[in-house]
Order: sequence, then structure tokens, then C-alpha cells
Amino acid sequence: MDFKKYIRDVADFPRKGIVFKDITPLLQSNFALKSAADELLKFVGDQKVDKVVGMESRGFFFAPWLATQLNAGFVPVRKAGKLPFNKISQTYSLEYGEDTLEMHADGILKGEKVLIHDDVLATGGTSSAVCKLVEKLGGEIVQCNFLITLDFLKGDELIKEYPIKSLMHY
Amino acid sequence: MDFKKYIRDVADFPRKGIVFKDITPLLQSNFALKSAADELLKFVGDQKVDKVVGMESRGFFFAPWLATQLNAGFVPVRKAGKLPFNKISQTYSLEYGEDTLEMHADGILKGEKVLIHDDVLATGGTSSAVCKLVEKLGGEIVQCNFLITLDFLKGDELIKEYPIKSLMHY
Repeated sequence: MDFKKYIRDVADFPRKGIVFKDITPLLQSNFALKSAADELLKFVGDQKVDKVVGMESRGFFFAPWLATQLNAGFVPVRKAGKLPFNKISQTYSLEYGEDTLEMHADGILKGEKVLIHDDVLATGGTSSAVCKLVEKLGGEIVQCNFLITLDFLKGDELIKEYPIKSLMHY
Repeated sequence: MDFKKYIRDVADFPRKGIVFKDITPLLQSNFALKSAADELLKFVGDQKVDKVVGMESRGFFFAPWLATQLNAGFVPVRKAGKLPFNKISQTYSLEYGEDTLEMHADGILKGEKVLIHDDVLATGGTSSAVCKLVEKLGGEIVQCNFLITLDFLKGDELIKEYPIKSLMHY
């Protein structure tokens, strides 16, 4: 199916000059939602996955769904200060300044196979930071899996050591 | 199954004197994650649901999963400024000050049957605001569905006109 029909371009969001890819029309459609989830799952094939890691907030839409289908647990990566228990953190660069992501230290056990999912691969800063968090805990990344990749931002170069799959490319 | 075994008490989070109910051990367990999702689905029974509404961020863990199982669409409610398109908003009171939630104006069509899901029913401020957003768009709320209800905060009183279901009570 043509998933791009369910992606809405919103001009000047979150700031002037940016064309934002809004996935809410896809989420709102019962048919597109289920079909997209099924396609993300197919990307994994028959690889064993122990944990699915999803990034706050839009990575949370499909990561727990994928976990239930793969008989895996789900581990959220959140912005600094949101997770309550013992955690590890990773700081990464933004266009201006930097940001920090956190994961619970008991989220992944050494040697576990990990699927990473987010809605959009843009510059790769977030995904690369999440890969580092997973590897700090001894997890083995089997795939980085996205709804959308913005090819022109070359985010794949920051995570080129891992298999990357994406349902849509722009 | 005893889901409370997978809920971790964290003292003094997010601030001194609060005992936070951390659901990440439940999410991290493949068995508890799938079992909890199945139980949340059973609460709905054979009622028709057109849209599942989930609240940022932890409501996003199970709401899209419930939507796929109910052959419904998923509509996110987000904090102010996060949604890119035409939206409606609802302001509600916090212990100190107030907060605003937003939903896309095309998220729900008049007459659609709506399931509302969040991880925790606490004071009911968030849930009540979300119910108002849904009704502004003409949606009919069939159930408010939670992982956890903190009974001592009496949040159910703010949404007492709707059926409420919760997997755990404290």
C-alpha cells in the first residue's frame, strides 16, 4: 500500500523553513496503522529479539506493538529526568546545543538482542545516542527500524554499522 | 497473573514525599507486557471502538496496540506545542498552576466511538481534559481504561460519567 498518502506535510513546523512529516493521518486510519505495524514487523524477519527499544515520544507508538509480536520486552528511552530509577545517559549534539537521553540500567541484559525503533530517522543524532546506550549495557543491536527516513539528512551515516530498515524514504 | 509484582515503587520521585509507581519492569517483561495488553483489551469486550485516544507519553505504550486489536485508529493527545496541524486544546488545573493538552481537530469525527487509555489514573485532571477534547469533536466515550488507578486520589470522581476500567488499584 502507498503509506505516503497518509503522511501530511506541515510547512514551517516546528520552526520556519522546516517541512514537518506528520504521521498522525496514518495513526488515525485503522487500516494504515495496522498495515504499517505489520510492515515494520516484516523487516525483522525471523531474527531473535529480546528487547525492543523505542524513543520518546513518537517511537512509543510502534515499539511496544513490535515487542508484543516478537515475544520481546519493551524498553523506553526518555528525555533527561523522566525515568525514575537507576539509569544511564547519553548526550548528543543538536544543531544548536546538546540534549541528553536516558535508559534504565536494568532495561537490557548483557548479550540480549535488541531492535531499535523510532518514527523518523533524521540527522541520526538520537538514534546514534540510543545505540550507544544499548551497547553500554551489553546489548547487541539487530536492526534500527523506522517509519520514515529523511534521506537528504544522511542520518544513516551515524548508524552505518547497524542494519537499517525504513518503511518510507524522502 | 499478579501484575503488581512488575510495578516498582520509587520513593521521592518526581519530588520528595511522592512514591512513584514505575511500570517499566512490566514493560520490560515480554510475558507481563503481552498479558497486560491482553487484559486491557478484555475490558473493552465486544463494544465497537472507532478511535483509541492515548495521552503523552506513557499512554502511548498501550493505546496504539489496543487500536490495532480493535480495528480502530489511534489518536495521540499531546502537551501544548507538540502537534503540528490544526488542533483543539483544553487547559486543566494542576496542584500548582495549570497545563494544556492538545488533539488534532481531525482526530475524531462526530459520532465516533472512543476508547480513552492512559497508564495511570491519579487526580483525574488529565483524563477529564481528554474527555472534554473528545466531546468537543463529537466523539462518544465508551470507556476510560488504565493500567493503574491510585484510588486514594479519587480521580474517578472527575470522570464519573464514563465507564472506568483499571488493571491495578492502589
